[in-house]
Amino acid sequence: MKLPRVVEDLVSSFEKLPGVGRKTAQRLVFYLLRVPQRDLDVFGKSVIDLKKKTNLCSRCHNLSEQELCTICSDLTRDSSTLCVVESFQDVIALELSGSYDGLYHVLNGSLSPLNNIGPEEIFMDDLFERLGKEKFSELILATSTSLEGEATLMYISEKIGKDVRESIKVTRIGRGLPTGVDLEYADDDTLSNALSGRSRF
Amino acid sequence: MKLPRVVEDLVSSFEKLPGVGRKTAQRLVFYLLRVPQRDLDVFGKSVIDLKKKTNLCSRCHNLSEQELCTICSDLTRDSSTLCVVESFQDVIALELSGSYDGLYHVLNGSLSPLNNIGPEEIFMDDLFERLGKEKFSELILATSTSLEGEATLMYISEKIGKDVRESIKVTRIGRGLPTGVDLEYADDDTLSNALSGRSRF
Repeated sequence: MKLPRVVEDLVSSFEKLPGVGRKTAQRLVFYLLRVPQRDLDVFGKSVIDLKKKTNLCSRCHNLSEQELCTICSDLTRDSSTLCVVESFQDVIALELSGSYDGLYHVLNGSLSPLNNIGPEEIFMDDLFERLGKEKFSELILATSTSLEGEATLMYISEKIGKDVRESIKVTRIGRGLPTGVDLEYADDDTLSNALSGRSRF
Repeated sequence: MKLPRVVEDLVSSFEKLPGVGRKTAQRLVFYLLRVPQRDLDVFGKSVIDLKKKTNLCSRCHNLSEQELCTICSDLTRDSSTLCVVESFQDVIALELSGSYDGLYHVLNGSLSPLNNIGPEEIFMDDLFERLGKEKFSELILATSTSLEGEATLMYISEKIGKDVRESIKVTRIGRGLPTGVDLEYADDDTLSNALSGRSRF
């Protein structure tokens, strides 16, 4: 049976999303067939406008509606601390944790020579430009713990000049046991990091 | 951090879909931020047009682009057999199996007194109207094996008049072991149905 063209189109669009197969895509479309037109209008318009109505913050490259993102334009935040992350998902996670009040620098990726992603492909140069221009007292490196994240961390650490290190404290986020995990189930690398990163109690 | 409004709107829209939570919705939206605008336009327009460009076939209530669906308007199909199903997903499944060549009647639901769904809420009257008007030699009842499906089956079976039963063979789809399932893992009801539905070999 040939599905109506618009149904087929929408199934294809859903199918392109990560983690959505054909069966799931069909299920979602059939669900939408029972949704009020008003909701479909909002949904469809949001998809079309998604990139038109957003941009990257000109300072930190976080996702933003304005020239400057809500974090960069918030004058109550601690502008002496800069936290380097890979993506705006990371910013959201850190913000939701409520444990950070400084500024961010979003690289929008991580170094991955195998995938031809070098420093020029991400916002790496901008980071060093900011370090030269803005006055930070601490730089927190919060890249992910993947191979690419570690490579990015090493790259930044090596490229930071001696003069910068004298005025800025460079740190990396703590490694160790995540909350709720038993020692016996932790992998070797996590345990090794947890031991070497032990703190006075 | 406040997400841009359009991002928040789209996350909400995705979140309303069955099986999609907030985290997944965010992941999908962030994925879409990297998709070409052309694809977003197609996706968004399909959502908005979904219900405008589809309707229910006036004869069998299957999903359709035209007044009559592609199955009802296909004159090469066997118009002497009618298969009653609950939804157009069922039609798609049967069509994909390639083992049925007759017509369908889509009830668009099943009887469920607990949810206040009676014969008037689904296309039940139309079924009996068709049985009176069109000339069928066989009526296949292919409702689901759920409680509601069984109730719907019983309702139809009881409501079919004696005169209709004399001219039309009424059958229900076979019950038994599905392909690929071991006897030891089958539930009691399936085994009982498989035994009573055994066929000469």
